[in-house]
Amino acid sequence: MKSIGALVFPGFETLDLFGPLEFFGWLPNEFNITTVGENTGHVTCRSGQRIAVDCLLGESNDYDLLLVPGGPGTPVEQVNEAIHDWIRAASEKAEIVMSVCTGSALLASTGVLDGRKATTNKMRFKWAIQFGPNVDWIGKARWVEDGKFFTSSGVSAGMDMSLAVISRILDRKTARHVAKCAEYSWTEDPSSDPFAVQHEVS
Amino acid sequence: MKSIGALVFPGFETLDLFGPLEFFGWLPNEFNITTVGENTGHVTCRSGQRIAVDCLLGESNDYDLLLVPGGPGTPVEQVNEAIHDWIRAASEKAEIVMSVCTGSALLASTGVLDGRKATTNKMRFKWAIQFGPNVDWIGKARWVEDGKFFTSSGVSAGMDMSLAVISRILDRKTARHVAKCAEYSWTEDPSSDPFAVQHEVS
Repeated sequence: MKSIGALVFPGFETLDLFGPLEFFGWLPNEFNITTVGENTGHVTCRSGQRIAVDCLLGESNDYDLLLVPGGPGTPVEQVNEAIHDWIRAASEKAEIVMSVCTGSALLASTGVLDGRKATTNKMRFKWAIQFGPNVDWIGKARWVEDGKFFTSSGVSAGMDMSLAVISRILDRKTARHVAKCAEYSWTEDPSSDPFAVQHEVS
Repeated sequence: MKSIGALVFPGFETLDLFGPLEFFGWLPNEFNITTVGENTGHVTCRSGQRIAVDCLLGESNDYDLLLVPGGPGTPVEQVNEAIHDWIRAASEKAEIVMSVCTGSALLASTGVLDGRKATTNKMRFKWAIQFGPNVDWIGKARWVEDGKFFTSSGVSAGMDMSLAVISRILDRKTARHVAKCAEYSWTEDPSSDPFAVQHEVS
């Protein structure tokens, strides 16, 4: 059983979190999901729903997998030291660190992506990469895997990435089965990125 | 501004709700989303997160749009009269009624789909259709539109359907823009259903 620490903060992008959690949630004997937040109570996601915080940042930084969403509330222009410290400590311990959309800007701003290949949301690409001057940013990628770090492009690419993580931890057959259960057409090729072209990132 | 009443119950399928809400959430000047539940507090979705109930069933059944998810907790084999009564009353008033996955079995079991074309999750197709003997069930469809009712196939098909609803209420250009913002490759053809074939439904 692997533990997943899913970071939540006010204004996180709804599907950045719930897309991957949908798939991990199909395997309750394999993954145990915990939402991790700064304060007790709720955080409100971009689309306005209030999500309960299961565990505080200060209670544990020890999870097998981390999931870091992006979105308008991503604490990156105004640094949130509690979240940044947690990301550094939790990334050190984790076996796999995932980000979706501008979640990679948050990871990058803590330094954990230094020297790594990574990608991010293409519409916000130029904005995001400023937070990681020492990151090898990839402009055309659905998601990028570099060691323990899986960073994905915008919102829905995170769903494809999370199936790749299930494939790495378990096997491809299981990942395909989960996609089929959700009637999701999984794009298995991490280099398939139509949005890089649309937003003129190269 | 259109109001959306998004029904929640314990064990609803995570992405059935949050897939469509992601897209409606990109248009906060057009849509106002309320989660509607039987009791105060939270409901826990299939993947285990606790979602706050914004409004009780008994407080209002007057929304412009309804969103009915499916999932393992769908109250259909054990009828929940409070939910069933709410669906009947709210469907009468609503301009558009959406269901995702086995949410259409729930709609069907209340009688509101009688005489209508509808679809549902293909893996659970044979199970679902028993709850709507007077429904014209379509075995190969990503989603089906019949008057005010939009019923979709499994989990991810609901995302495509919700963009079709945005297209109907606003316009296709806006729906495509929302899909692009989320870096989502929208399947715009409601008859595109690879899962009907996979699960041998005809």
